[in-house]
Amino acid sequence: MDKPVRRTAPPELIAELKTLLGERLSTSGAVCEQHGHDESYHETASPDAVAFAQSTEEVSAIVKACAKHRVPVVAFGTGTSLEGHVAALEGGVCIDLMGMNKIVSVRPEDLDVTVQAGVTRKQLNEFLRDQGLFFPVDPGADASLGGMAATRASGTNAVRYGTMKEAVLSATVVLPDGQIITTASRAKKSAAGYDLTHLFVGCEGTLGIITELTLRLYGIPEAISAAVCSFPSVEAAVNTVILIIQSGIPVARMELLDETSVMAVNRFAKLDLLEKPTLFFEFHGSQQGVAEQAETVGAIAAEEGGERFTWAAKTEDRSKMWQARHDAYYAALALKPSCKGLTTDVCVPISRLAEAIGDTRADISQSFLTAAIVGHVGDGNFHTIFLIEPGNEKDLSEAKRLSGRMVERALAMGGTCTGEHGIGTGKMHYLEKEFGPAVDLMRTLKRAIDPLNIMNPGKVIRV
Amino acid sequence: MDKPVRRTAPPELIAELKTLLGERLSTSGAVCEQHGHDESYHETASPDAVAFAQSTEEVSAIVKACAKHRVPVVAFGTGTSLEGHVAALEGGVCIDLMGMNKIVSVRPEDLDVTVQAGVTRKQLNEFLRDQGLFFPVDPGADASLGGMAATRASGTNAVRYGTMKEAVLSATVVLPDGQIITTASRAKKSAAGYDLTHLFVGCEGTLGIITELTLRLYGIPEAISAAVCSFPSVEAAVNTVILIIQSGIPVARMELLDETSVMAVNRFAKLDLLEKPTLFFEFHGSQQGVAEQAETVGAIAAEEGGERFTWAAKTEDRSKMWQARHDAYYAALALKPSCKGLTTDVCVPISRLAEAIGDTRADISQSFLTAAIVGHVGDGNFHTIFLIEPGNEKDLSEAKRLSGRMVERALAMGGTCTGEHGIGTGKMHYLEKEFGPAVDLMRTLKRAIDPLNIMNPGKVIRV
Repeated sequence: MDKPVRRTAPPELIAELKTLLGERLSTSGAVCEQHGHDESYHETASPDAVAFAQSTEEVSAIVKACAKHRVPVVAFGTGTSLEGHVAALEGGVCIDLMGMNKIVSVRPEDLDVTVQAGVTRKQLNEFLRDQGLFFPVDPGADASLGGMAATRASGTNAVRYGTMKEAVLSATVVLPDGQIITTASRAKKSAAGYDLTHLFVGCEGTLGIITELTLRLYGIPEAISAAVCSFPSVEAAVNTVILIIQSGIPVARMELLDETSVMAVNRFAKLDLLEKPTLFFEFHGSQQGVAEQAETVGAIAAEEGGERFTWAAKTEDRSKMWQARHDAYYAALALKPSCKGLTTDVCVPISRLAEAIGDTRADISQSFLTAAIVGHVGDGNFHTIFLIEPGNEKDLSEAKRLSGRMVERALAMGGTCTGEHGIGTGKMHYLEKEFGPAVDLMRTLKRAIDPLNIMNPGKVIRV
Repeated sequence: MDKPVRRTAPPELIAELKTLLGERLSTSGAVCEQHGHDESYHETASPDAVAFAQSTEEVSAIVKACAKHRVPVVAFGTGTSLEGHVAALEGGVCIDLMGMNKIVSVRPEDLDVTVQAGVTRKQLNEFLRDQGLFFPVDPGADASLGGMAATRASGTNAVRYGTMKEAVLSATVVLPDGQIITTASRAKKSAAGYDLTHLFVGCEGTLGIITELTLRLYGIPEAISAAVCSFPSVEAAVNTVILIIQSGIPVARMELLDETSVMAVNRFAKLDLLEKPTLFFEFHGSQQGVAEQAETVGAIAAEEGGERFTWAAKTEDRSKMWQARHDAYYAALALKPSCKGLTTDVCVPISRLAEAIGDTRADISQSFLTAAIVGHVGDGNFHTIFLIEPGNEKDLSEAKRLSGRMVERALAMGGTCTGEHGIGTGKMHYLEKEFGPAVDLMRTLKRAIDPLNIMNPGKVIRV
């Protein structure tokens, strides 16, 4: 790959932005450095300046100024992406959207809310709690909703409530020429024209910048309960999941921890879970409904050899039960405290999931790296957390090699190279493999919408 | 609007297609006429030839030949669209896809199926029944799945199972230059690249031709039950629906018939429903679950003044109950047997639905036309069936005027000009009103993907 050519912001552009934003434009080295990377191991690159925007109109003015000078623009939220999404590879201006953190309006009757892009998912849920509503999409980080939309994020609730693809009803977007558009009405469904909303959900800031979102909400269920169950094999656990989904039981969460992950959380949180592949369930519904769901799930699990099926209806017990799942990442890191985690992400048709996980475990057992597996198994999505010594090139290249094998297998099984983390810079070569000639169409879209290639250049696809 | 310029298929193109398809290319006047219109009152226009394709490769070859001669291509399924989608306004070649009616593969473990575009929804469900699976999207007609995807169709199950937007996992598409692409893998979720699937779902054949689809399936629920309830007002009925949705009760269907519709079905099917706004419900789940859902819904309805809440768990009673809803269209037509129906389609945020329906009823009461209203109220979507005398211009223009008022009000309420019928030629001017500057982006997409403007020209947007 050619080294990207820097398109540095010229002094006139900096002056223009200074006039527009005053103190809210920073060229400080520390600020630029902090905005030049996400949480991953990928290449970092500082922007020339960081603009702290406070409104859609400001974002539009910044983008217009950058377009005039043909200077790149990178949108920035919480910086918690995992595939190098925010590195300013060609320099330019980073727009930090975290000052746009207003909840614009909530409409309980319509079960929707309009938020600015910098509102985080936890901020939104805290705001909603008193109204008996919640927003279900929950990636690991307390990410900004704009960033979550831009990367098509999901999390543990997706099996029941969907991903950001289903969650976003409409977006306000600043286009590469600075024009402001709204992608859709607030109607729950529409057959009007091309689906602009889904053009921007998942575009990773390469086609425009999302500044506002209208999102679907749900009523907080009357009852929530949880269950945990151990299985003799990953296959038995996955078969249980398949049967549950086929039965139409509306399980809210179904998460898998492999033996290594269970061992790690046992050590980390002093638990005594059986060190076997384990499923964590959450049920949402009426009191009677969640009891019935748990009962049916318990019966299906038993048929597949599930052991120690434990069910909890009380909030406290339920939280304790799920704590193990929430701790899984940090528990894995604690296995080798000097190491950092490198997290992979693939998604396959669920009929191939046991095989995909089995092959990955076989790879790990033949490798010198330690790794734990967690999976959003209802969706066929799983992650391997590789423990790598910071600065150790051998560790890093081995983790990349194994991540590559996971992707190759996922593609061969009819799956995708990323279930929820996105492409960024880290998976551009896999995108070509996954889509073949369809990547040319993506390129056509990129060229037509962003002819100057100023929107987050060097990400998703090569132009 | 300028009269479209015909781009007639030249004899060389016809000869090329004849060589390719033999008897499966028709230039017969009757065949062309039959392929030049849908079920609506909109302008008809016959293509110059109809190509009966049997494979994706054939569609590709036909499109390549048409592109070479810069001749329009219109895809055709069951011809049941409602906004003039298939009229060959500029002439050219119609590709009839109904010969592509194979169910390619069904994967019960993954709850998905791959079908050719000409498979109809009823054909698919008959095939699936023995495997305990079903496909939920159910527009009125037994439409082809390719056509349903192209128009982003929905129906009565959308409140629980979503529309074609949610149903399509992946599509095989022939692009305007004849290239064949697959828009996505079979993974249940993906964060890989631009969302090509949703670019084609709802494009009405103007960006490419869908030849194959991979669709989400569901297990046939253990139990299905139904209920009917009358209300003192549309407002009371809609409030009931809002409370049900907020409570998270997973009702599968919630349909509204207004007083005129109920009166019509009473006459048509000799029923004795109260002639008041009436909701029809369907519940899917376990035996215990559907009983509980019905009980909760009954209680909510009672609080809103619901009368004669009747619940049926037996298949026969349930079918009888729902027959009234299924008959609504023909029952309305039977009110004036000499008339045809003109069906409108808007969708608003549900908080505005009672007002939208009330204003429409007020319009109807001041008009000389007879009209009945039915609504997929869980989605905020409703239709007015206007009864118009064939050939009577006064009736037609009055129906169009009132349909226009419905759209204007829907847009003012934050809704959309079409919930499920699409734009076609009939609603192009409303699309401009609904999207404002965002229509320019749609135009950019159309020009980039179809630079010769050969794909179903004159539909969705003006280029």
